[in-house]
Order: sequence, then C-alpha cells, then structure tokens
Amino acid sequence: MVTNYRVVFLPDNIEIEVPEGKNVLQAAGLAGVELDGPCGGNGSCGKCRVRILDEKGAYQWVLACRTEITRDMTVEIPQLEVSLHRKNELSLAALHVSIDPGIYKKAVFVSTPSLENQHSDAERLLNALEEGAWEIRIEALRSLPKAVRDKKAKGLVTAVIAEQQVLAIEPGDSTDKLFGIAVDIGTTSVVVALMDLITGDTLGVASASNPQATFGADVIARIDHVIQNPEGLNQLNRRVIQTINRLTAKLAKDNNILPEEIYQMTVVGNTTMTHLFLKADPTNLATSPFIPVVSKAVQAEAKDLNIDIAPHGKVYVVPCIAGYVGGDTIGVIMSTDIYKKQGTYLAIDIGTNGEIVLAKDGEMISCSTAAGPAFEGAQIRYGMRAANGAIEKVVITDDVEIKVIGNQPAKGICGSGLMDAVAEMIKAGVIEPGGRLLSPEDAGHLSPALQKRLGNNEEYGAYFILAYQEDNLGEEVVLTQKDIRELQLAKAAIAAGIQVLLDQLNLTVQEIDEVLLAGAFGSYINKYSALGIGLLPPTEPDKIKSVGNAAGTGARMALISQEIRREAEKVARRVKHLELSCREDFQDRFVKNLSFKN
Amino acid sequence: MVTNYRVVFLPDNIEIEVPEGKNVLQAAGLAGVELDGPCGGNGSCGKCRVRILDEKGAYQWVLACRTEITRDMTVEIPQLEVSLHRKNELSLAALHVSIDPGIYKKAVFVSTPSLENQHSDAERLLNALEEGAWEIRIEALRSLPKAVRDKKAKGLVTAVIAEQQVLAIEPGDSTDKLFGIAVDIGTTSVVVALMDLITGDTLGVASASNPQATFGADVIARIDHVIQNPEGLNQLNRRVIQTINRLTAKLAKDNNILPEEIYQMTVVGNTTMTHLFLKADPTNLATSPFIPVVSKAVQAEAKDLNIDIAPHGKVYVVPCIAGYVGGDTIGVIMSTDIYKKQGTYLAIDIGTNGEIVLAKDGEMISCSTAAGPAFEGAQIRYGMRAANGAIEKVVITDDVEIKVIGNQPAKGICGSGLMDAVAEMIKAGVIEPGGRLLSPEDAGHLSPALQKRLGNNEEYGAYFILAYQEDNLGEEVVLTQKDIRELQLAKAAIAAGIQVLLDQLNLTVQEIDEVLLAGAFGSYINKYSALGIGLLPPTEPDKIKSVGNAAGTGARMALISQEIRREAEKVARRVKHLELSCREDFQDRFVKNLSFKN
Repeated sequence: MVTNYRVVFLPDNIEIEVPEGKNVLQAAGLAGVELDGPCGGNGSCGKCRVRILDEKGAYQWVLACRTEITRDMTVEIPQLEVSLHRKNELSLAALHVSIDPGIYKKAVFVSTPSLENQHSDAERLLNALEEGAWEIRIEALRSLPKAVRDKKAKGLVTAVIAEQQVLAIEPGDSTDKLFGIAVDIGTTSVVVALMDLITGDTLGVASASNPQATFGADVIARIDHVIQNPEGLNQLNRRVIQTINRLTAKLAKDNNILPEEIYQMTVVGNTTMTHLFLKADPTNLATSPFIPVVSKAVQAEAKDLNIDIAPHGKVYVVPCIAGYVGGDTIGVIMSTDIYKKQGTYLAIDIGTNGEIVLAKDGEMISCSTAAGPAFEGAQIRYGMRAANGAIEKVVITDDVEIKVIGNQPAKGICGSGLMDAVAEMIKAGVIEPGGRLLSPEDAGHLSPALQKRLGNNEEYGAYFILAYQEDNLGEEVVLTQKDIRELQLAKAAIAAGIQVLLDQLNLTVQEIDEVLLAGAFGSYINKYSALGIGLLPPTEPDKIKSVGNAAGTGARMALISQEIRREAEKVARRVKHLELSCREDFQDRFVKNLSFKN
Repeated sequence: MVTNYRVVFLPDNIEIEVPEGKNVLQAAGLAGVELDGPCGGNGSCGKCRVRILDEKGAYQWVLACRTEITRDMTVEIPQLEVSLHRKNELSLAALHVSIDPGIYKKAVFVSTPSLENQHSDAERLLNALEEGAWEIRIEALRSLPKAVRDKKAKGLVTAVIAEQQVLAIEPGDSTDKLFGIAVDIGTTSVVVALMDLITGDTLGVASASNPQATFGADVIARIDHVIQNPEGLNQLNRRVIQTINRLTAKLAKDNNILPEEIYQMTVVGNTTMTHLFLKADPTNLATSPFIPVVSKAVQAEAKDLNIDIAPHGKVYVVPCIAGYVGGDTIGVIMSTDIYKKQGTYLAIDIGTNGEIVLAKDGEMISCSTAAGPAFEGAQIRYGMRAANGAIEKVVITDDVEIKVIGNQPAKGICGSGLMDAVAEMIKAGVIEPGGRLLSPEDAGHLSPALQKRLGNNEEYGAYFILAYQEDNLGEEVVLTQKDIRELQLAKAAIAAGIQVLLDQLNLTVQEIDEVLLAGAFGSYINKYSALGIGLLPPTEPDKIKSVGNAAGTGARMALISQEIRREAEKVARRVKHLELSCREDFQDRFVKNLSFKN
C-alpha cells in the first residue's frame, strides 16, 4: 500500500500522482516538468524556487528540493523566459530563397461511394489525387473516413503530400495553410521559428534555455553525463524534445493553429546537440578520433522522434561537418552565402562552443574551439543569458555606466556585457594586460569611484563591482578574477583557431574581406570590445559585421527550400575540417593569445 | 489524496497501481491484461475467474468482477490456451513458393575510425555496404555506435536491408538468421506463425482466442462497439495487438530468438479485422454501401502499429476484395492456386463469417455470408472452440457416442461436433427435417436411450443431452432447440451464397471439380455431415477437400515471397464481388435452404 498525492504543476497544468516521501523537485522530474536543480537538490543553489499554493489559497515561495510532499499540492513553476520576436524582422526574402519546401497540399473532391462505387476511401482519394500520390501513411488512413464524410466539407478534402506519400488528410480546403518549424538547438538555448511554408514568412520565434544544462554546461559535460549514467542519453533527449514541443505549442497557440498542422521541421545544432536530439549516442565524440554516429543529413518522421507536430511530419536534420562542427555551422555558411561568394570571409559562431569557418572564393575550412560557455553567461559568477535584467553594455570613465536589457534593475551580466566590461576595465587600467585584476592596494592611480569598486573577500576572491545593490534596487553584480580568467581562456581559443585557419590557407588578417559574427551573442557584440580584448584579429572595425542567429536562419532557409537542403549536403562534404585538439600550432597560438595585449 | 494498491498480474508479471474502489476486473482492464467479462461484470457469467494469492500465500479462486481491491494483491490469470504446432506439418515447399521475402541481411566489416578517417559510423557503414543501401533508419542509427565497436565482433556487423534502407544493425555476422511472422486474425481466433525467411520453414505456430470477442462475437457486434464507444476502436485495436505480441513473444522464446530479430510480418484477416488491426475506423463497413477505409495492401512499420518486433520491421497487410471479403480470402485463393488453375473450384472459408469464392478457369467471383459464429462454437449453449474438452464427433445409433478432443471429459461442443450431432440427429429422426427437435411426448418411436435424452425445461427450452454429467465426470452437455436454429441460419446462408455464385457464372453443382473447405473448422469437418445438413450442395463426397488454415497459409506465402504479394494485389483487383445483402435471389435461396431437407 502506498499513499499517493496529486501534484498539479502550473502554468502547464501537468498533473502527476507521486508516492509520499518525494519532494517537489523529484515530483517535477517524474512529471517531466522542467525545473533546474544544478546543486543536486541539497538546497544550496536556490535555482529550484517555485511557488506553492498553501491551504489558505495563498502562494508561497519555497525551494522545490527542500519541500516534501505531504498533501495534494498545486505548484507554480516560474516561467522560463520565452522570448517571442515578430516576423517582420526575420524575412528571408532578402536572402532570395525561393519557396520550395518539398511538401505541398492538394484539395480534391472525393467521390461519394454507392453500391455501384464500392471503392474504399483510400482508393477514391488516390483516384481524385490522380498522379500526385501513391501511398497513404497510416495516420492519414486513420483520419480518412471522417474527413471524406465531413458534413460541412461535402467530400472536399485536402491531402498533405511529400515524396508521393499522403502524410495527412484535412477536411475541406486548407491549401492556404501550410506550416513548418525551424529549430536551432544551442548548447545553452533552444530557438524555434514557426514558418508559413506558402509565403516563406516567419510567423514567430520562441526561445528558451536548453534544460539539458542541468546535466552540464558544455557539450563535454553532457557527453560525460551520457557516459556515466545508463539513463543519461534518454534524459538529455527527453529534455530537448520537451522544450521543442513546448515552444512549438506556444508558437502554434499564438498563431491560432494546431501543432498537428505543422508538417515539416528542420533542425540545426552542433554535432552533440543533433545527436542528443536524435537519441544517438554521442560518446565517441568525446575522445579522439571524435567520431559522430552520423554526419550526413538525417530524415525521419516526427513521431519517430516524439516531436508533437503531425505524426508523419517530415524532420530534416541539417548535416554536420565533423564531431564539433555541426549543422549549425552549415546554417551559418548557407545564410551568409560564403560558400558561393568570391572573396575571403571569416565567419565565427560564438556560442558555448566557437565554430570558425574561413572561406576563400568558395574554398572552405573550419575548426571548432571549446570557447566555454563564458560568452553565454555560464560559469561566470553573475553570468546570465541576454535577457531582461542582464547588463549588456558597460562604459568606464571616472566611474562605471551600465545599460541593462529591459531598462530594469540589473540581475546579472550577459556575454556582450562581460566583453564590454573587460575591454573597458583593460582600457581604464583596472585589469592588467596579463589579466590580473588590480587589488585595492595597488589601485591608487584610479579614480576614487573605481577604487571603491575593487575588493577581495572570501566569497568572490578579487572582484570588481559593476552594479551596487543600493543603486540598483536589484542585486549587487560583481566581476571576479575567476570570471576574467574564464573569458581569457575563451577568447584565446577563438583567436588561436582563427590564426590556424589563416595559416592553413596562407592568408593574412589583412586579406580578410569581412568578419561575420554569428550567434545570439554575435548580434549584441560591441566590435570595439571584441577587438579590445583580442577576441578578433586586428582588422578594420568596418569589416566586422553581425549576422544575427545565422544558424537559425540557415534552418529556416532549409525549411522552405529543398534546393538549400541539397546545397547544404554538398557544402557539408566540401568544407575541410581541421581538428585542433591535437595540433601543436594551435597550442602555441593559444598560449600566445592568453594575454589581453594585442 | 488517494490510496493506491499495487496489483501484480501473473503469469506476465504486469504491475499496476490502482486507486481504492476498483475491482480486479477493472484493474485488469487498466493494466491491459486480457480477461473476459462478457456479462459486463455483474457476476453472472463466471468467465472472469482468476486466482488470487491470499495473505497466507495460498491461491484462491475468485470472480475478478466481484473482488474489490483492498490491499496490494497478486492475481493469476488462467492461461488462455495457446496451441503450438510443429513445423514439419506446415512446410510451404509443396506449394512451390520461391523464397524472396524482399528483405535481406548483409554482413560487412566497418573500417576503424582514426584522425585520418574521421567519417561517421553511418558513413563508414554505407561505404562498406557499397550500393546496397542509401538510408539508415533511426533505430538502426541508434544501435550503430555500439555494434561497430563490439569487442567480440571486431568491426563486423550485419545490416538488415529492405527497399535500400538499413532497418537494423546487429553486431557480428548474423546472416544465417532472418525471421518473420505471418498472422491470421480471425474473428474468433488469432494465429501467428514464426518463419525462417532463409529456408522458408515454419518454425512454429501459436494461436489464441481473439480477445475482442468480449466486445461482440461477430464483426457486426464489434463494429457496433466502435460506433457506440468513443474508446471502442482503441480498445479493440489494443486487444488484438496485445494478443499478436504475446503469441509472437512466446514463439520467439520457444525458438530462442528475440522478438526484435523479427523483421517482417504479413497479416491476413477479414476486412473488419484488418481495419481493427490498423486502428482504421470500420464504421462504414456496417451499413450500405459497405465501404472500407482501405482495401489495397497496406505497408507500415512495426512501431507505427505498436507491434513488438524490430521497430522498423516491415508490416504488410494483404489486400481485401470488399467490405466483407478480406485478405484472408485472398490468402485462401493464393494457397489453393485457384486463381491460375484451369477448372471449376468452389472455396469456402467457414469462420465466424463464411466467405465463398467460385473460380472457373481463373475467373473469380466471391461473396460473404453472415454465417454467424455457430461454426466456431459461439452463441451455442455449450459451444466452444475446437480445443481440449470439445465434443468433435458424434455418432447416433441406439444411443449417442461422442469423441472428445484430448480424450478427456466433455466440456462443450465445437463446430464440427455440432454439425455431426445435428446431421446424426436428423438421420435418427430426433430432429424433424424442418428443424424441430422432438419433444419427449412424440418420441415414442425412438430407442429408450435416445428418448431419455430429450427434455424441456425452463433453462434450456427443448433440449437433447449429448453427454451426461455422471458418465462424463465433466459437465452435462446439451444441444438446445435454439442451437439447432442457429445452425440452420448459418448453413442456409452459406448454401444460398453458393447457389447465387453458381447462378452468376451459369454453372451447375455438377460442374464443380473441387469443393475446398478452408478454416480451422474446415479441417475437422465431416463432409458427410456437411452434406447431411445441406451446408454443401449435393456433390460427390470425393470432390470435397479440406485445405486447412488456407488463409494463414496465404499469409505465410506472402511473408516469404514478394512475388506472391504482387500476385495477391492483382488477384484482389480481379475477383468480382457480389454484395448479397440487397439481392432478392439471395433472400429467396436463403429461405429455401432453411430446411434440413436436401
């Protein structure tokens, strides 16, 4: 005998029965509700804060990991930020992608059966479709009898067709609606775009943190989780699939469609992310010779992967180049056109990893550096994603001026803010060229306001206050010596990777026509700061361009165009990949780039 | 707060938690455990008897529907009979079917990756397979990294290939093993044959009752269940899938293989059964113009249908001819060769429905009659399947002699026994030609022993005792007037159907070269009894042949031969179907055949 309690998780209204003795964090895990507990449930990280409804009907904040379930309970999970952008800013028209998604709808009248026309529903449908389709997939068969007998539609049905298969049947004429989603799975964030496959318009974009982060901040930590835990691969897979499903459901709802009306999906991500998405074991990516299970494009059906769109919806995973250069980089290459343009281009996608592509007149080489998650705000004391409350710009004169996303009290600092802060601190002399943060004792030459911000205590070690709690009405935000070291490692890796690629093609920095910065981070970067800390090679600032979430744009292009998919497959074979981890020239360059001296 | 109890169902060790207030029959339903309760749980039919383990560890028989769950409980479900036949009797060699299942295995060495050969596992596999395959299905991808790194196999893997797709990967060389199952879904019984797709041998055959019977004895009752209950289609589908999975697991175990090593499956059944198997709504089969969702062959993957073999295993559903003439009849046509033989053949598959095909020099017409389940022992007071304890033969002289399957006390009577009994009772004058059972009062001319067997009471109405309880050590087995009427209806329908088909092709009974009796029942039938009651037209007994489970044989042929599948699709289009239900000539013939006079 077990006593079970019913726990309802808001806002998604997910209900679960759990036996006594479990806490709210465990119940959330059982219910498949995303709730972070990076400290392993010992009450120290404070990240599992939730609100529970007490007996009087009032909400109270508690730590989920410290709250045992002793009664039926309603728990409100604080909303992960889901940012939604508008479509206008995201048109693909400028990229001249012609719309040819490889999937289409056809509306036909299906004849009424009679004793003289005893043909099956399937046969009458295929007759009506003429040459268009030869096979009806099982879920379409299942919905067929109702659709052809729909009272309002009077025999008119719409078939969704791809590769001569009928994937689904809708009653009436719905040929004016055809939807797809393009998914960009980052190590830190997941971005889903809902697209109209008839107009090519992006109807909305939603993003959320990648909840796999609980099991490790970077790809190596995630692979390690898979290696160490028999259930690890399933866990990581389930988390990302749930997030994609949740974002998709939200986008569908906001656009008044059903997720089942979405018939196509493309996915980009680094090689580890696409492996975890496919539930393919990424173990062999972690050790030399760094072998993926699959690098070519993968095609599957949504229900093979538990994706909650139309069950026979087509899923296309953009091909990878190598173990650490994934479909996201192919997305960058496709959306920047560097695979077919004359000239010399350096494209850098700075996320949790840094992928770099150097293209000269269509010849391409790539490498990947373990940038570390510093640029995405992880492993930084007050690091956070570029969301409301994040310091995104820093200017230092006699004192510190900050700009906070959403113009609200600062809660932390995002990647671009971090880079600004460090670049400005170097300029102001608060950080020595070697990376050492001044101590209050040897900062006598600084302004009193800056001196006052320096400190050293047990909690932080050496630190510099970017935002005071009292000024801020938010939290104190400090930058620690350790944060600065993280950034040094990250920037040195990327700078060294760039130099190795240039050497490989016998090019100099001066010969680069454009430096293209991709990634959510790339859009916000202050190029002077990037040059200032030595992340980018010394080039004219005018040559540096932000190309936004170019990987995601590549996914959207592949979604609406079969031609782009075919091109992507060719490009994946053409790019020459350099494996840096075992190269001495990379090690040399890395050490030389650790300093902030340029 | 709810108190839940754990209930474990033996022998399959299925565990479920159920809230208090449920009874064992309901718990079995929730757990998906097959347990019949045809009386709807009011304790009257006694068919839900199970054994529960009491607190002292002893088993006690109880009625599941009358036993509320008030503690954690272990329940043993009496084993449904699963009959297993041996392979020798089932060779297809005599049918000259060449082995070409459309699926094959290829063993190859996959190269060892290195920094110089960083190709993905998938790429190295496809290279090794050369031209054989172009795509690797998702589950094969998932098992690939482990298989190519298997310590013992040293890079040797076996790919299972169909339609240029790799469906699965097995470590080492397993090309000497390739298995499939052929499934015959009858309204009353489900038969699964495990086959070796390399030799064409049948490794074993297992059968069980179709557990859908709880929801209705014949196809009309099942369709009605679907119409009346929103969950009806799911229920019926789940039941048959579970039974197929259970029989398959048993056959696999008996042959020391894993169900996942089974890569192909063919299915025959009447149109309603294949609809329920596919979870396609059979509603429109029940009313004129009797339209199936699909009649052509359906191809799907095992996991689309929740069949527990290899997830990408290919499922082929043999095409139907019309609403009430299904793939099982195609199976009969294929295995009897009547689609290509010169001569005139009458094939009758007597199951819960009676499907009849008349073939003349390859021209074929078919019809279906609602034979009713009488021949399968249902709706007969003491009716049962042809299993141990069933009276299968009856001879009447001065008294009654019976033969019981398994030479054990009689528990009931199966279809062939029923036909024997009635034929003998007609001969002995116990039944009048019009079908009336004599009453004790007007049976003075019979032997005293026979007179003694006649009776009339409130429970049975007029009856005739076939087996006395005291002689028998089993149960009293009686035949009632109502049973005789059921048989009259069934035989009249089939006899009338035969005559309509003969009329249609302008043939007489004398022109028939062979009468082929198919179906489990067809194998046991006494042809003299069948002629005696007027089921078969008056023809020379030598022309009447049993062809066994010809539908199942057709499924096995289709399993090992793509050629047979292609032929079956052609045959399905060639057969001309007569819809009897609205024909006046059928009605006339039916009425004329109700009498036992020939």
